[in-house]
Amino acid sequence: MKKDLVIGIDVGGQTAKCGVVNAEGNILAQSVIRSNEHTSAVEFLDALADALHALVTEAGAEGRILGIGMGAPNGNYYTGVIENAMNVTWARNGRVPVAQMLQERMDGIPVILTNDANAAAVGEMRYGAARGMKNFIVITLGTGVGSGIVIDGKVVYGHDGFAGELGHTCVIRDGRLCGCGKKGCLEAYCSAVGAAKTAQEWLAESDEPSLLRKVDKITSKDIYEAACQGDELAIRVLTYTGTLLGQKLGDFIAFSAPEAIILFGGLARARKFLEEPIRTSMNENVVSLWRNKVNLLFSPLKESDAAILGAAALAWDVK
Amino acid sequence: MKKDLVIGIDVGGQTAKCGVVNAEGNILAQSVIRSNEHTSAVEFLDALADALHALVTEAGAEGRILGIGMGAPNGNYYTGVIENAMNVTWARNGRVPVAQMLQERMDGIPVILTNDANAAAVGEMRYGAARGMKNFIVITLGTGVGSGIVIDGKVVYGHDGFAGELGHTCVIRDGRLCGCGKKGCLEAYCSAVGAAKTAQEWLAESDEPSLLRKVDKITSKDIYEAACQGDELAIRVLTYTGTLLGQKLGDFIAFSAPEAIILFGGLARARKFLEEPIRTSMNENVVSLWRNKVNLLFSPLKESDAAILGAAALAWDVK
Repeated sequence: MKKDLVIGIDVGGQTAKCGVVNAEGNILAQSVIRSNEHTSAVEFLDALADALHALVTEAGAEGRILGIGMGAPNGNYYTGVIENAMNVTWARNGRVPVAQMLQERMDGIPVILTNDANAAAVGEMRYGAARGMKNFIVITLGTGVGSGIVIDGKVVYGHDGFAGELGHTCVIRDGRLCGCGKKGCLEAYCSAVGAAKTAQEWLAESDEPSLLRKVDKITSKDIYEAACQGDELAIRVLTYTGTLLGQKLGDFIAFSAPEAIILFGGLARARKFLEEPIRTSMNENVVSLWRNKVNLLFSPLKESDAAILGAAALAWDVK
Repeated sequence: MKKDLVIGIDVGGQTAKCGVVNAEGNILAQSVIRSNEHTSAVEFLDALADALHALVTEAGAEGRILGIGMGAPNGNYYTGVIENAMNVTWARNGRVPVAQMLQERMDGIPVILTNDANAAAVGEMRYGAARGMKNFIVITLGTGVGSGIVIDGKVVYGHDGFAGELGHTCVIRDGRLCGCGKKGCLEAYCSAVGAAKTAQEWLAESDEPSLLRKVDKITSKDIYEAACQGDELAIRVLTYTGTLLGQKLGDFIAFSAPEAIILFGGLARARKFLEEPIRTSMNENVVSLWRNKVNLLFSPLKESDAAILGAAALAWDVK
């Protein structure tokens, strides 16, 4: 039977989203399983394989799957291994050879792994804001800050497969402690968690009234909603977050001279408050030859779709 | 006649060095002309063409030149144009189409332009510290700080041909004014000129004795020589310079995951005092997965040779 379909999987800290995708980029069937209920990789992979088998049946795709693409935090394209993914319960410490483990559970169908931000970049290139572009950077603003860098139409993997960890470049020297153990990382300030941390710190430092004082565990969604209601502290938090991000985007442009930077992920939904601070700061902090010349775009793709489609796109390259 | 030779040209702020190179990377003949005595590009290109014609005669290379490769500050590979090269008297403002202008003066021999740091990177890959490597970054520490980034064996040019301006990423927020108009650029601190500026500032701020107090116009060579004589202030200047550079190298690694970073240029001659501070700071400031895993190398090539050979290497790709 003709192998005319692929599977895309987006593994996050909370859930894994899977879809059967055809050559036109339509998701024929999709499902979601929990990814944070498993303490061992074997348990998770067993559950994932069960879900995929059910999905293949649902899509009438038996014998038609060419390959499986998987995007996951710290996923290594070269080795097929997830290494020390802090936000993933079953891959927090050590090396999990997920590509091989899944392939064994899927009757030998080839599995290609990459990190989640790289998968998003491939998704944007094939179906999103980066269609027709050969040089761009996707920044994912979620629980963490990830990045997928595309140069000359190809995702940059580097010498060891881990290139594109822009969330762990320094935005404030000796600043806030990051989950990675370093201080002042972009992720510590400009992730959804980082923005919430900023709000908490600022609330603790003053008596300024704010809608956020009523919120128990502040999330970036709470900040965005408070900002929409005119909450000044919330608006300032988003302005500050965007300004810091823009500073680093100026540096990133000096590296690869991209045509565009594309923002993606939960915090990017606060575009209304983030876009201007980011753009202003990016242009103030970039070499003059690129000032006002690099597009700042927000992903038009539904978050789950982009990640599934991006991961699936990898699978078409299976030999 | 068989076209079995190429010409490499390294254009700097003070001089332009030219050589006729064979397939084995031997420089058969070379010469140097001033590049800072001309206020118009036409004058400079006329002088350069005269020098090249003489060089071709000297090498017995009439009719054998396949192509000419040229490395120059702000040289654009895509367009063959030098744009706003601050350190070059005849290209300070506006666009100079040097590739075309030189080709017209050289009987139509194809001319390929790139920036000087990219040419150095190609030179390292063919003949220097990066032989056999596919992913590395060359940082040139001269009058300015330049960079040539190689990913998957190819120099990164980006969307517009200007990628790799790492000297103009920010190392100290709101720091020293850089020649580019921004504040706190790496180049403002870690170029030869930047290190001299640090020495001048520190001498002005205290009465600490230093051999450098006797020097009229301090250069990075003076600092190195004073350090060799045990001058504490000079040693501290080089330690500080190396520490700042290392901080940014940590960020650069997070971008492209290189196998090595290779330092090149006049200030790199102070290796004895720079190497440890750079290495320590780089490893402190990089994500743990790369800690102590990325090689820090110093170019083994003679500066003038590397630039000529790198530029020449471009010319072999002439179709």
